[in-house]
Amino acid sequence: MSKEQRVRVDAMMRQPRHEGPVTIEELRAGFRALMARMKVPDAIRTEPTELGGRPALRVEPDEGPRAGTILYFHGGAWVFGSPETALSLTGHLVTKTGFGAYSVDYRLAPEHPFPAAIEDTLNAYRALLDRGEDPAAIVFAGDSAGGGLAVTTCLAARDAGLPMPAALLAFSAGLDATRSGQSMDSKAGIDPVFTRADFERTSAMYFGDTDPHQPLLSPAVHADLTGFPPMLLQVGTNELLLDDSTRLAARAREAGVDVVLDVTADVPHVFQALVGELDEAEEALDRAALFLAQRIRAGARA
Amino acid sequence: MSKEQRVRVDAMMRQPRHEGPVTIEELRAGFRALMARMKVPDAIRTEPTELGGRPALRVEPDEGPRAGTILYFHGGAWVFGSPETALSLTGHLVTKTGFGAYSVDYRLAPEHPFPAAIEDTLNAYRALLDRGEDPAAIVFAGDSAGGGLAVTTCLAARDAGLPMPAALLAFSAGLDATRSGQSMDSKAGIDPVFTRADFERTSAMYFGDTDPHQPLLSPAVHADLTGFPPMLLQVGTNELLLDDSTRLAARAREAGVDVVLDVTADVPHVFQALVGELDEAEEALDRAALFLAQRIRAGARA
Repeated sequence: MSKEQRVRVDAMMRQPRHEGPVTIEELRAGFRALMARMKVPDAIRTEPTELGGRPALRVEPDEGPRAGTILYFHGGAWVFGSPETALSLTGHLVTKTGFGAYSVDYRLAPEHPFPAAIEDTLNAYRALLDRGEDPAAIVFAGDSAGGGLAVTTCLAARDAGLPMPAALLAFSAGLDATRSGQSMDSKAGIDPVFTRADFERTSAMYFGDTDPHQPLLSPAVHADLTGFPPMLLQVGTNELLLDDSTRLAARAREAGVDVVLDVTADVPHVFQALVGELDEAEEALDRAALFLAQRIRAGARA
Repeated sequence: MSKEQRVRVDAMMRQPRHEGPVTIEELRAGFRALMARMKVPDAIRTEPTELGGRPALRVEPDEGPRAGTILYFHGGAWVFGSPETALSLTGHLVTKTGFGAYSVDYRLAPEHPFPAAIEDTLNAYRALLDRGEDPAAIVFAGDSAGGGLAVTTCLAARDAGLPMPAALLAFSAGLDATRSGQSMDSKAGIDPVFTRADFERTSAMYFGDTDPHQPLLSPAVHADLTGFPPMLLQVGTNELLLDDSTRLAARAREAGVDVVLDVTADVPHVFQALVGELDEAEEALDRAALFLAQRIRAGARA
């Protein structure tokens, strides 16, 4: 990363903050506008579809997919976002791996609080299995809140007696609703995207008075990851959420799970969306693509 | 990894232990015999040479190298091993990246205790720079004690005012002569290769009464990694040395260094040498090759 790139990216992410009350629709529109600036690769085709009772976006390489499915969960604090706002990330994973993806339009808070999102993502996975897809050819992937869903959907699947997918991939995952990571304080001001107050606002919408001390809300603190598939956690050091990933990685190691903790210095939340702005974005996506391809190949071999 | 692979690998590594006193030459011969079982790729050519006043082995892809140099440091507890015993690892990195390598035959203890090895590896790096090689096209790599040397040679280079290489790659690095990692106890008996007594024996030869509480002997505990290049640390969970890597990764994150901590479950020390026996070996080497290629490409761009 050049110094110029870093300064430009920091300024781009450090958006002017709203003064006074903001409606949920204003928040959602702001997120759509931000994510619309992210580059979507040309060599994909998309089609609206349905998966497990929810809308979903099918994303394929132009030349058609090879065997293997990415089940993608978009970010947005469980309150905003959609398959379209994550299309840069999903699209690049699709072009770089050759796999097709389904990006799930799970229900959002505050209209549909916890655990509605996890019900929807679990139903999407179940729908893939019900139509005969091999779990060894399915990977869960997501960014931010969606990275959290990649992990918690896997927990929910295990608890429901479903087979594990081949791998998990999470970009800057939100994995701790108790907000107890050291980076919540040590990265305050350094993180150009978030403040603790931001999380408090969206947490109130997502889980309200529900105790956050439970695995499905705070897997980095409370989940038993025994039996989990290999996981790749990518995160930047300019993030309040840094220690969500470092602590989940430690829990995974203790549970005997393969885990790659891939930390890029001096980059913000979900920097992988900054392809074209930041060399590290494309490089991180290439590492992610190799990881997914290895895990789906291993599943096919087993 | 299949269960059959794992059982076979564990038995292969869990060698019968010597009873009674063993000479240093017997130790070295035993290590040579073990490492001679590791598969060396066909598509390389090797040539004995000299680098910075020490013998070295030049390793190139059959079809000739592309721009970029791997400076490789073999393992063997600073007491045994040579470029030949690490040729499986060096050779696979060479074939998978297309880069040429120099594997340094640094001086060994007890004949040449600390810091002789680091003097030799630093001189090898200096020799590359003196002949005009671009540091942005050089990566340090090593296994076990040699993974430690990848880190400590970088420390020594920084302290000598030399430019940093493009990246560090370490397989199951030995990074703590104080032996204070939790895994030194929690993995006792699980590690099929080492006991604490093994380390005490080789440590006595390598640094004797020298205080291990210093960066060049215990970088995972005492090194300031500020200014370090991106690093990839690969390690298995069946290792006394697991926490050498996890603690160095934490220090790297705190110092603002890009770091990938790549942990494979249920595999032993330097499992990457088990290509052909263990699917995870080849996969880990492929991830390492992508990492090295990305860093040397980034150096060429800068």
